[in-house]
Amino acid sequence: MNHYSIGIDIGGTNTDIGLVSDSGQVVRRRRLPTTEYHTAADYMRAIGDTIQQLMAEQKLPSIRSIGIGAPNGNPQSGSIEADTPNLNIKESIPFREVLGERFHVPVTLDNDANAAAIGEMIYGGAKELRHFIMITMGTGIGSGIVINRQILHGSTGTAGELGHAIVQPEGRLCGCGRKGCLEMYASARGICQNYMDAAARVHQPLTAEAAQTLTCQMVGEAALTGNPIAVAAYDTTAYWLGIALANAAAFSAPEAIFLMGGPTRAGEALMKPLKHYFEDNLLFLYKNRIQLRFSELNLNEAAILGAAALGEAATSAAPHAR
Amino acid sequence: MNHYSIGIDIGGTNTDIGLVSDSGQVVRRRRLPTTEYHTAADYMRAIGDTIQQLMAEQKLPSIRSIGIGAPNGNPQSGSIEADTPNLNIKESIPFREVLGERFHVPVTLDNDANAAAIGEMIYGGAKELRHFIMITMGTGIGSGIVINRQILHGSTGTAGELGHAIVQPEGRLCGCGRKGCLEMYASARGICQNYMDAAARVHQPLTAEAAQTLTCQMVGEAALTGNPIAVAAYDTTAYWLGIALANAAAFSAPEAIFLMGGPTRAGEALMKPLKHYFEDNLLFLYKNRIQLRFSELNLNEAAILGAAALGEAATSAAPHAR
Repeated sequence: MNHYSIGIDIGGTNTDIGLVSDSGQVVRRRRLPTTEYHTAADYMRAIGDTIQQLMAEQKLPSIRSIGIGAPNGNPQSGSIEADTPNLNIKESIPFREVLGERFHVPVTLDNDANAAAIGEMIYGGAKELRHFIMITMGTGIGSGIVINRQILHGSTGTAGELGHAIVQPEGRLCGCGRKGCLEMYASARGICQNYMDAAARVHQPLTAEAAQTLTCQMVGEAALTGNPIAVAAYDTTAYWLGIALANAAAFSAPEAIFLMGGPTRAGEALMKPLKHYFEDNLLFLYKNRIQLRFSELNLNEAAILGAAALGEAATSAAPHAR
Repeated sequence: MNHYSIGIDIGGTNTDIGLVSDSGQVVRRRRLPTTEYHTAADYMRAIGDTIQQLMAEQKLPSIRSIGIGAPNGNPQSGSIEADTPNLNIKESIPFREVLGERFHVPVTLDNDANAAAIGEMIYGGAKELRHFIMITMGTGIGSGIVINRQILHGSTGTAGELGHAIVQPEGRLCGCGRKGCLEMYASARGICQNYMDAAARVHQPLTAEAAQTLTCQMVGEAALTGNPIAVAAYDTTAYWLGIALANAAAFSAPEAIFLMGGPTRAGEALMKPLKHYFEDNLLFLYKNRIQLRFSELNLNEAAILGAAALGEAATSAAPHAR
């Protein structure tokens, strides 16, 4: 008999809820508009009702676990913190308490990048690995660091913010208020900026309108067709990401570093220069010993799978020998 | 009754062997000239004989453990690798095998920075901490990363090389062959270079002779008396170290970062600007939550204590809850 778990991916716009089988298939899924909820109680009631619908449709008397990936998810308390940016709900959202009581299963919550890392470990390309890093590329850059098959949370619960490693002191101003963070060079927004800079360098600056409608996907597609400005933009991306990942390697000496998210759709236009700069900047101890790989999870399902994997990892986790 | 352990600090010039009490006192110590040994067998026989002398002098029938801190120490095999730079012995040196057989105790070996971290945890200022980083400042910069009271070794056994984090792409050429590594700015040599650069900036370049005889200790002493060039040199040191440690904080979110080694003798001339740049470059999640501290171990004993602590940590280690 198959076992099923629930994975919930919480974003500022949408909340995606999926029913996931043992083998990592998202068998059913539903979407709620996050923005329409203004109290934690309403929001959690809607999520709970949706879970019950999914179970009923699949004729399931029970599920095994609930996992939740969320920005500002606090793994210790099982809540989303009060006053999380981009959420209309301003009070704390106590998922573990409320959903745990309603469904009588373990409820595990973590930030979305950590969920992605655990998703790769349970359902994707890291099934056999003990030490790896997941880099999630999107509007920003997140990271989940796995050491000995466990997420590194650190003393604050918030370890693994490699998107905010400073790679270029006095560089581009970041939304966090500091300068030169990796995500200003290698996130979707950073890649667009790299494109605009590359265009200006060859005296073909974008019009204000073109700059406004530019997307990372356009840059990636142009790079794949060999457009020299787009290729230069991805080269810059790879240069900074290569240095940052080489520094991360000198920290935890992982077996592999995975990349996930929209900008990875550029495929070899990203991976080829990235491998070059990564190896070039790697300390001799690590050269040719650390794989750079794309996530093996389908991008449309990765967030739900990651969230579901959080619950699965927590329920199946026996302490691992070092 | 007191228990005693042996700590061995292996350097290219000297091998220091100490008998250490439970309470962290180095009760007896002896020094062997590393350079005079050319075979692993001779070297280990001399070390074993010295241990036996120390035990006899203290009238000890037995010891509890042997710990060894060594550059290129391989914790998995318990050996120093063949062809280690700065050693005349070119074959592998199988400490665990030989000393374990002779003394019938656990023999633990790790690199010197990891030994320093464990020394701080067992005998120094990190007794109550679960997550911290030790930075050893000397000719180079080493680091030992402790997560949940265990050294982070990673997949290669060689994790934690923060001295080779690239802080200034295209910066000063490092001995490792790359550019802009932290240790080119914040090691003893880096601090001397900072001094020479600061002197040149105010049109008082050092003569070739002065440059040759300049030591980090001289710069530190001058900084403590307020010499503006030396103060500027330490400011530069603190700037780069502050960025690198802020990046390390975003990786493992430690409770504290400790500094050890010769350059720390500059005291507040280092710590005051370092705290400024560290906090300034820290992501908001970590601000005011991570202590910067000097090691509490006496610098003359720290290496022996660290080595002894390796053995003690290994013999007393029960698996820790996360």
